[in-house]
Amino acid sequence: MTASAALGTPRSATPDLLRSVFRQHAAGVAVITAPGARPVGFTATSVTSVAADPPLLSFGISTGSSSWATVAEAEHVGVHILGEHQRELAATFARSGADRFAAPTSWRPGPYGVPLLDGVLAWLVCEVVARVPAGDHRIVLGQVVEGDPEGYAGTAGRSRPLLYHEGRFNALRD
Amino acid sequence: MTASAALGTPRSATPDLLRSVFRQHAAGVAVITAPGARPVGFTATSVTSVAADPPLLSFGISTGSSSWATVAEAEHVGVHILGEHQRELAATFARSGADRFAAPTSWRPGPYGVPLLDGVLAWLVCEVVARVPAGDHRIVLGQVVEGDPEGYAGTAGRSRPLLYHEGRFNALRD
Repeated sequence: MTASAALGTPRSATPDLLRSVFRQHAAGVAVITAPGARPVGFTATSVTSVAADPPLLSFGISTGSSSWATVAEAEHVGVHILGEHQRELAATFARSGADRFAAPTSWRPGPYGVPLLDGVLAWLVCEVVARVPAGDHRIVLGQVVEGDPEGYAGTAGRSRPLLYHEGRFNALRD
Repeated sequence: MTASAALGTPRSATPDLLRSVFRQHAAGVAVITAPGARPVGFTATSVTSVAADPPLLSFGISTGSSSWATVAEAEHVGVHILGEHQRELAATFARSGADRFAAPTSWRPGPYGVPLLDGVLAWLVCEVVARVPAGDHRIVLGQVVEGDPEGYAGTAGRSRPLLYHEGRFNALRD
């Protein structure tokens, strides 16, 4: 197709094409937690605000992930916005096999037993209102129940979010 | 609740709480386009990769937005990852009343008539496979049909994505 060829060399749809495009996308970093016989949690770069009234957010999760069995049953989840000072925490909650809630992770049970992580920029506890099938993933829709928008503030009280881009953590320039 | 009070002063769920928390979140910036009697497009900070096989992504749209009527009917949409050099383009596609496709916007019709913007880091054309209701918004699920992961590259050929945080555009530090 001439029109698109003029823009470069378009490729047909493959998992690799999607990955290549999203390597160039940058995203904020969050940790999702859920209560259970053992609490679970995982690092997510898919958290996004969806609607204001009622207040809804969403995130994605693989049905092959170690957290899925618990998130599939959870009535509530915790959503934590990480600061640029929390690369280690983000790495811990992305590492397979690790006991993610062992020291040095600092956390406590919050509303509805949801594990709340300390030192984050902001957190929300959400009621899970939908788990939308999307291939081998689910888009989890959460309605905000409670939260704290005023967590950790760095130098000059500024909120400095942790970012993820091209396979590594990063931060804002300005 | 003592456990959560110890973390600060939790607030009950309101649209303002969600906004306050997500002001601290940072996100990559994309422009979504759709073909129609007149093409439509809008700036989105909600684009996220969902699943690899089949390759799926999602984004949010308000049913009150000027683009919704067209996106509600579109079989295909374009998803463009913006670079840090494209703040003006991002502002144009977020401004109400503007003719977003007039000069200086540089674009051309791509596969399935989807408007493709020039100078972006990467683009994908997706088939719309679901529009999931979420309050007064819809989560649009798109399956990748075609794309170009190798668009504009800045200094040293590096991909430098545009970011949005605390109500303004930003860029990566490293």
